[in-house]
Amino acid sequence: MPRIADHDRRRQHLAATAAGVIARSGLAGASMRDVAAAGGVTTGAVTHYFPGRTALIAAAYDQVMGKLAERLDGPEHPDLRDTAALAGMLAQFLPHDAETQAEWRVWLAFSAEALVDPALAARHRAHYAGVLATIAAELGGAVQADLLVAIIDGLAIRILLEPDDWPRDRVLATLAAALPIFT
Amino acid sequence: MPRIADHDRRRQHLAATAAGVIARSGLAGASMRDVAAAGGVTTGAVTHYFPGRTALIAAAYDQVMGKLAERLDGPEHPDLRDTAALAGMLAQFLPHDAETQAEWRVWLAFSAEALVDPALAARHRAHYAGVLATIAAELGGAVQADLLVAIIDGLAIRILLEPDDWPRDRVLATLAAALPIFT
Repeated sequence: MPRIADHDRRRQHLAATAAGVIARSGLAGASMRDVAAAGGVTTGAVTHYFPGRTALIAAAYDQVMGKLAERLDGPEHPDLRDTAALAGMLAQFLPHDAETQAEWRVWLAFSAEALVDPALAARHRAHYAGVLATIAAELGGAVQADLLVAIIDGLAIRILLEPDDWPRDRVLATLAAALPIFT
Repeated sequence: MPRIADHDRRRQHLAATAAGVIARSGLAGASMRDVAAAGGVTTGAVTHYFPGRTALIAAAYDQVMGKLAERLDGPEHPDLRDTAALAGMLAQFLPHDAETQAEWRVWLAFSAEALVDPALAARHRAHYAGVLATIAAELGGAVQADLLVAIIDGLAIRILLEPDDWPRDRVLATLAAALPIFT
């Protein structure tokens, strides 16, 4: 069914474009028109794939969380007793290059908007439930998974808002200090 | 100097009104006009105290962080070995009633806006530096303070966006599981 595949591909491309616009300008700067302009298409073309701004924002967030889920399923599972390897693996989930920074910026903008939009809050809950189940299975406990996600989310905000103050060795030292919870 | 005191009092009152509007409606729903309407004053009166929207948002955030600093300076310092007392004290810093929920909602909205507004990001950094210095002195280490703040910030987002899923005993059990980092 090439037409459906094509539709999906274009829709994903626009969601990625929306994620880029949100990361650069925040949600206030990510209207349907802004995303259309960034994607080089008409506003009508965006509306064809996304009935409204909420659907577009949700799709951008879905992409970001989808990439996270892929990384979580990745093959890298260091020994829980190897502190340096574990801290290094966890650091990969924090903002550390242009791509992950953009993803986290979408996450933060989305989370703030979810405060006042129940449909987006439900999206948050669905994605988090999936991520937490994966991590809980890995760590052997739901409470540990909640704590790990809290640490990653909380540190991500610091790194995003204090970009000059979090060189890699500070990130690694902070993560290493958290490991007693998990081992 | 009663006139200056009066000016300050009115300014603080408008900042509190702005915080309430941001907590309810998000930043997108907190224009100068919205805040004026909520405070029962003219937009001109708001402009008299705050030259623009950024100054108003910054003042609302200053109030929220000021209350946090007051609570941190409070007299309650349980024994670091008393797990239940420590978890209970930390839980007080998380959203747990209408007032703290509103404060955290302002914090999240502000943090997302700080991504795209360097003046607000500088405000975040100044407040966090103060809070972290206090906590680091208490815990005996800057890395521990970074971790505690990350856990509190990360859990606060969960509690805000999953309000039905975080009864007090889940919050306490999660915080208690983090204590090996700090003791």
